[in-house]
Amino acid sequence: MSAPDDAPPRTLRLVIEYDGTDFSGWQRQLGQRTVQACLEEALQAMTGQALRVTGAGRTDAGVHAEGQVASVKLSSRIPVGGFLRGLNAQLPPDVAIKDVRDADAGFDARRSARGKSYRYQIWNHLTRSPLERRTSWHHRAALDTQAMREAAAAFVGTHDFRAFRASDCDRKNTVRLIRQFEVERQGALIRCEVEGTAFLKNMVRIMVGTLVQAGMGQLDAAGVRRLLEAGDRTQSGVTAPAHGLTLVRVTY
Amino acid sequence: MSAPDDAPPRTLRLVIEYDGTDFSGWQRQLGQRTVQACLEEALQAMTGQALRVTGAGRTDAGVHAEGQVASVKLSSRIPVGGFLRGLNAQLPPDVAIKDVRDADAGFDARRSARGKSYRYQIWNHLTRSPLERRTSWHHRAALDTQAMREAAAAFVGTHDFRAFRASDCDRKNTVRLIRQFEVERQGALIRCEVEGTAFLKNMVRIMVGTLVQAGMGQLDAAGVRRLLEAGDRTQSGVTAPAHGLTLVRVTY
Repeated sequence: MSAPDDAPPRTLRLVIEYDGTDFSGWQRQLGQRTVQACLEEALQAMTGQALRVTGAGRTDAGVHAEGQVASVKLSSRIPVGGFLRGLNAQLPPDVAIKDVRDADAGFDARRSARGKSYRYQIWNHLTRSPLERRTSWHHRAALDTQAMREAAAAFVGTHDFRAFRASDCDRKNTVRLIRQFEVERQGALIRCEVEGTAFLKNMVRIMVGTLVQAGMGQLDAAGVRRLLEAGDRTQSGVTAPAHGLTLVRVTY
Repeated sequence: MSAPDDAPPRTLRLVIEYDGTDFSGWQRQLGQRTVQACLEEALQAMTGQALRVTGAGRTDAGVHAEGQVASVKLSSRIPVGGFLRGLNAQLPPDVAIKDVRDADAGFDARRSARGKSYRYQIWNHLTRSPLERRTSWHHRAALDTQAMREAAAAFVGTHDFRAFRASDCDRKNTVRLIRQFEVERQGALIRCEVEGTAFLKNMVRIMVGTLVQAGMGQLDAAGVRRLLEAGDRTQSGVTAPAHGLTLVRVTY
């Protein structure tokens, strides 16, 4: 069905959860299975319109989301509850809509975002975990959680993060504010939770790779401060693998 | 390699974790991918011997394990640490060995077991959860956790559980002891944890199906007691789906 001529123009705000394992990331790419493409197909099936969805964060291949946010402009009389049920019926098992609401006409999930929270999970045990394997990075050698916590605290504040971004990231402004960076352990599972205004490409994963160096006793909080000051990507940690990362929340 | 002629006879005790999603259960079945068959192949690759592994619980297709226990009799000089590393290198990503130790010659993972703990997870939310979908049952309508907790308490003790087993279960003795049955909620996730001496076929899943009736207000603790007394399978709840169930621990 297509929109009746008198259907009002609307901006919808969607909250989305996905298991990133079998997706080539968020962003539409020719010939790839992506979350954005799945959503746009489901919206087209419901409205008959070819629509473009804007996501708050362009998560990489393998990265998960508990609370990705997307916006879409369309003309429709379908109530928000109808979108919630209809989209979830169309979408595959590894992606679901948690909430749909009408937003102001000016709302743009990407540009209006004021902050994001990510969680990175490390399975720190001699043997791998089949049940945690899709959402955690397996690190065999014992990590000192307290040392990781101290290193994480050194990232908090406003810093130039040019040493903590992918080499192909071309953003001019590399100054970002990290509001909170916590490290908690529950048995073999270490959870790193970071909250900030915005993040550069691969920034969370490189910070986590650096925390793992700290957990191995190769770096301390003063070392993290030196890395931030030097601004040299080749001195900071490895990029932790994508599958340990989850976009938890976007704030507006 | 095969065992040298003078290799000592040993009984190994293995602790195993698996993601049951892509397995046709524990037990070896011709033409099916099962956990037992994977383990026996990995042991054969390491020892050159065709061995038979005994599992503490024959989990159904789709059921997971955090702490399944198995025993195997073999002749080998490989140290337990060698088995741990070697088996994990051979096994596919959805199954892993957490611990290997030498046991007494009389140890049999099935017959020596004195108790088992299972967890059943219910995702109780209007919308489904892609990240929890492999290990929880999605139940849309709101469940009253307190009512489920009271119904669960009525199962605790020694009872005849003939109303709570699969119709093709042919055990003569249907009396079992449940030591503990707890129900906890964390957000949308309800965790039912049950501990007992032994369980009949599908017993945990039928008890959970019955708890869900209680959570919907269709049954109370007195109703559970009446079901136990009547002993009629057709009056108890549905069999909750396999993928919400995890064998957590086996005690000896």
